[in-house]
Amino acid sequence: MIRFECDYTEGAHPAIIKSLTETNEEQTPGYGVDIHCDHARELIQQACGQPHAAVHFLVGGTQTNMTVIDSVLRSYQGVISSVSGHINGHEAGAVEGTGHKVLALPSEDGKLTAEQVDAFCKSHFDDPEREHNVEPGMVYISNPTERGLVYSKKELGMLSSVCHRYDIPLFMDGARLGYGLTSKDNDMTLHDITSFCDVFYIGGTKVGALFGEAVVFSNLSIEKGFRYAIKRHGGLLAKGRLLGIQFETLFTDNLYFKISQNANEQALRIHEALEKKGYKFLNDSKTNQQFPLLPDDELNRLEKDFSFARFGKTEDGLNIVRICTCWATRKDNVDKLIEAI
Amino acid sequence: MIRFECDYTEGAHPAIIKSLTETNEEQTPGYGVDIHCDHARELIQQACGQPHAAVHFLVGGTQTNMTVIDSVLRSYQGVISSVSGHINGHEAGAVEGTGHKVLALPSEDGKLTAEQVDAFCKSHFDDPEREHNVEPGMVYISNPTERGLVYSKKELGMLSSVCHRYDIPLFMDGARLGYGLTSKDNDMTLHDITSFCDVFYIGGTKVGALFGEAVVFSNLSIEKGFRYAIKRHGGLLAKGRLLGIQFETLFTDNLYFKISQNANEQALRIHEALEKKGYKFLNDSKTNQQFPLLPDDELNRLEKDFSFARFGKTEDGLNIVRICTCWATRKDNVDKLIEAI
Amino acid sequence: MIRFECDYTEGAHPAIIKSLTETNEEQTPGYGVDIHCDHARELIQQACGQPHAAVHFLVGGTQTNMTVIDSVLRSYQGVISSVSGHINGHEAGAVEGTGHKVLALPSEDGKLTAEQVDAFCKSHFDDPEREHNVEPGMVYISNPTERGLVYSKKELGMLSSVCHRYDIPLFMDGARLGYGLTSKDNDMTLHDITSFCDVFYIGGTKVGALFGEAVVFSNLSIEKGFRYAIKRHGGLLAKGRLLGIQFETLFTDNLYFKISQNANEQALRIHEALEKKGYKFLNDSKTNQQFPLLPDDELNRLEKDFSFARFGKTEDGLNIVRICTCWATRKDNVDKLIEAI
Amino acid sequence: MIRFECDYTEGAHPAIIKSLTETNEEQTPGYGVDIHCDHARELIQQACGQPHAAVHFLVGGTQTNMTVIDSVLRSYQGVISSVSGHINGHEAGAVEGTGHKVLALPSEDGKLTAEQVDAFCKSHFDDPEREHNVEPGMVYISNPTERGLVYSKKELGMLSSVCHRYDIPLFMDGARLGYGLTSKDNDMTLHDITSFCDVFYIGGTKVGALFGEAVVFSNLSIEKGFRYAIKRHGGLLAKGRLLGIQFETLFTDNLYFKISQNANEQALRIHEALEKKGYKFLNDSKTNQQFPLLPDDELNRLEKDFSFARFGKTEDGLNIVRICTCWATRKDNVDKLIEAI
Repeated sequence: MIRFECDYTEGAHPAIIKSLTETNEEQTPGYGVDIHCDHARELIQQACGQPHAAVHFLVGGTQTNMTVIDSVLRSYQGVISSVSGHINGHEAGAVEGTGHKVLALPSEDGKLTAEQVDAFCKSHFDDPEREHNVEPGMVYISNPTERGLVYSKKELGMLSSVCHRYDIPLFMDGARLGYGLTSKDNDMTLHDITSFCDVFYIGGTKVGALFGEAVVFSNLSIEKGFRYAIKRHGGLLAKGRLLGIQFETLFTDNLYFKISQNANEQALRIHEALEKKGYKFLNDSKTNQQFPLLPDDELNRLEKDFSFARFGKTEDGLNIVRICTCWATRKDNVDKLIEAI
Repeated sequence: MIRFECDYTEGAHPAIIKSLTETNEEQTPGYGVDIHCDHARELIQQACGQPHAAVHFLVGGTQTNMTVIDSVLRSYQGVISSVSGHINGHEAGAVEGTGHKVLALPSEDGKLTAEQVDAFCKSHFDDPEREHNVEPGMVYISNPTERGLVYSKKELGMLSSVCHRYDIPLFMDGARLGYGLTSKDNDMTLHDITSFCDVFYIGGTKVGALFGEAVVFSNLSIEKGFRYAIKRHGGLLAKGRLLGIQFETLFTDNLYFKISQNANEQALRIHEALEKKGYKFLNDSKTNQQFPLLPDDELNRLEKDFSFARFGKTEDGLNIVRICTCWATRKDNVDKLIEAI
Repeated sequence: MIRFECDYTEGAHPAIIKSLTETNEEQTPGYGVDIHCDHARELIQQACGQPHAAVHFLVGGTQTNMTVIDSVLRSYQGVISSVSGHINGHEAGAVEGTGHKVLALPSEDGKLTAEQVDAFCKSHFDDPEREHNVEPGMVYISNPTERGLVYSKKELGMLSSVCHRYDIPLFMDGARLGYGLTSKDNDMTLHDITSFCDVFYIGGTKVGALFGEAVVFSNLSIEKGFRYAIKRHGGLLAKGRLLGIQFETLFTDNLYFKISQNANEQALRIHEALEKKGYKFLNDSKTNQQFPLLPDDELNRLEKDFSFARFGKTEDGLNIVRICTCWATRKDNVDKLIEAI
Repeated sequence: MIRFECDYTEGAHPAIIKSLTETNEEQTPGYGVDIHCDHARELIQQACGQPHAAVHFLVGGTQTNMTVIDSVLRSYQGVISSVSGHINGHEAGAVEGTGHKVLALPSEDGKLTAEQVDAFCKSHFDDPEREHNVEPGMVYISNPTERGLVYSKKELGMLSSVCHRYDIPLFMDGARLGYGLTSKDNDMTLHDITSFCDVFYIGGTKVGALFGEAVVFSNLSIEKGFRYAIKRHGGLLAKGRLLGIQFETLFTDNLYFKISQNANEQALRIHEALEKKGYKFLNDSKTNQQFPLLPDDELNRLEKDFSFARFGKTEDGLNIVRICTCWATRKDNVDKLIEAI
């Protein structure tokens, strides 16, 4: 079985294994205040173009989302998200578990638009009885989205403006940020992301690390107490250096972006092969997640040797299939898949 | 600087690094349903003598405590703990963050006694207006305690009986369980722990792993929904196999207990050296945490080359110092400390 | 200004004021264990046809919803609701504040159907990775709904069956239950409600009382710890007898239902008057809430002397207006409104 | 049975019953934005000497405590309280239910001192690893305390200074504030309370009202979002005017303080009678709660005709008894008790 069902099927990039092995016998203080974490923070600040940004390391995506959101919001506030946002549908109610409602707005393609956030906020704050509803206190987006699409610089800029107008922080879930920023569609840099978002994270788990997400607060006014929040949510890793060492490695020699490209390239190869056979797609993703619409027999045939994720059916009865590549995807395995197609 | 301030200063046992390296390119499903996790579960079930126990893997101790406690308790219940229990004083209010009060009982030595739990529960359940107080719904103990002491089989048996009488699950925090079970003072086996406790965990983070805790439910009736709870608290590791691989390694050839012994042996060597110099101790710990009472000048002198943790002062003005060894503590480093003493 | 904007514009039915005045100097124990509460519980048990049902009194609707839901659910569970359910859109995130997601299902008319609950539950429980989503642990419905419609006996029976099949309690918000059970459309009795629902409440705030909701658990297995839950959510009224006295009065001589009829009768008079003028309605409510679709000029004209609630606009630009009557609505005031129309 | 077990045994002061009756048929908007609430707010602002203070009305004490504390604190903060504070031991874990730890400090007499708050805060904020503990974010005191003692102006002033030094709001639970401010021991006015505290509440439930507490924020910077918080915690009373009408009445012609005096006077009469018989007291309370230490036989004898609350035993085996008077306590009933003594 060759696995394309998700982007966390392998361990870590060999350079990370090497770093972890080489540093294994070092003695360091715990909880992320060691030299590796400090170094990784510096490298990320540089990469983001904001030497004063605050950088924190957490273990996984759900943990990061719930910790950031709960830490930034006041108790009575909620977080605006696309209805297909990861926090709304795939995190077991983690955000609600911290007491906050996810204010889910409809979205065809998984993105939020500046217009709809504006309309929602206007409607809320204009209501004289607004205290019967949940005050929007943050906007959450994923880039790329859960369906592989990236925000354009213009889209993100407008969203950022709306958020600032209502004094609501903008938070980007960058679990797959590497794949987004190296996508053919992308017109943004990490500097842009840092400028537009008040807080975002750079995903490691799905992009080369064993685990780990680097949270970047460019807006320091909302970072207060964040280490308390991490600890309180069980996310302060005792051997915090493991996160530092991994991000140190990923942000040395541009490794993070180099390995991201592999995923996108292999994904597009699969896309082409399917397209040539006449299959349609859910959308025009240029990132590591591809969503072909496949008939039952073709899907069943392929699943004998390859694993994919199934996301329901279209009205025409076609399967919405997710095929994921990642930093570790081997060309020969993709060759085999293309051949099978 | 040679570090004795805590038991998570190094990476992982070389055998674990080796396992992680060797399995690095394997493709597995995520979230702990892979063959390594399955194998690790079997090995732990065997080691516990309960083939039907449910075994789950989490990343860290605070995360494990809050997830177990929140999952087992009803919303209106609290958890009984020694006032010095880790959940009460060193986890940033994580348990309260899930909505549950820690019902802290006084304790000289950090242990809870069957008598005091009995008295507390009796007093609560006899009160006709008991709904104005928090219903005790679980008993939490640490073994060894935060001050290095182990429960005797008799003590744990009696505590277990009281808990059963009130139909309240007994939960053991085993962050340092390896050091407890290999202590000279200990008269219990892992089988005993499994019998007496409804749920407990076997700590990996402090005993040879990069990270990881193995939760064992011997009482399956309270395990319902635990995977939801892990996910909801952000603890379901995407590459769950990392936990499986580590516990697979630790529970092969008795590695977990072998490496635990080293910590206790080195700790006792330090103990002896300090005792010979006439220093007193906070208690008679035989495990990897030693608590000598040191005057300022001696402590300051030693801290030039060695790092310890300070736990306040005695009434006589002596420093309560914690000196930790662990599975990785090197004999030559302890030699240097002894020489310095 | 004559008020039709909601059904809590006046104080209490004179019989209640009389009871409160007459009992004012009595001395009773606090927290709802007095003779008035006991008596009210008996009267309600009789009215429900279940002498063993557990009856508790709370102060208001949001408080009741959050307390029942949080008390019955396990921490990792959520509650299914219509998207227009009161808990989803008009309670400031109170349910999420207790840590539980509201699983909002689409609904044209505000009701949930047995089919959609079945489909949702089947989809959830069939999913091998279901722990990434919130487990449905309760079904919440309002009767009448927030838009004034009542469930038929057949509809409720089918919903109840589906809930039982999945072992998920059915909870009915009866904030306006009196208006529902005395509606021309209604084919159920309080006995039916008690049989079909595991727990529901009989609204007093909107039906004759100063405040107060009577929660009825016909399924005692989910009532465990409910008094703790009330206290923990700040809902245990010190002078609990105030609730007992009010429900004692409402359930003596069928007062609750008698005064409910007035609201429905006056509502239908207003309905007819509007219909005669050619106005359409949002739906065919036969209860105390009427939702005419009015053009701006007509609405503005009427609002000079009468207050209504506005619920947005239709696609045609008509105002969706809510006109509420209640137990206290005076015939002469309705006459004036009809004349104005 | 003549009741002295608590201070909420009767209904409301006749003037309140009268006001409620007279206003019963008025139509007002809901949720506390009516003319009675506005008027009551003005009267309280005047009484507090702060025309710009924000005043909100809630139904009960536990609800008020949890709502204020949860609204003001950041998610990762806790509230400092005396170990005998009402929030710590008698509210079923309501504060923890909102996710916040109660940081309970020891206290002989139930009061917190400026020194101990200072020492606790200093110790916390000086700790470089403070994020492993809960950040103190508020100080909670009761005045009078749960054992009937009042803070002196000097004590409260010093406490207030310490709080300001650490930028931590000071919150006073004034459930029995009327009895405190009219006590012979008291040297403060409502103006002083308002100056020293950032937020406090004036208890109505125990002082003449059917129910109700008036929260006064003199520090407006921490009041943001409070109406959302009330609604989210189920505390926004639909017929909010009921609270306005009651406080309007209590703060007209100084009624609140006049009726408070009665309680203290009757309490001191009982005190004298017991003292004459040679009985000792737990403390020197001059307010409506008296705590005589009575032998079993005497207590049992008295309890045939009078109800008290029992608060455990002294080391000498005497019963710690609480005898409560209130605004409604009748002189003839106290005569009977004195005669029995």
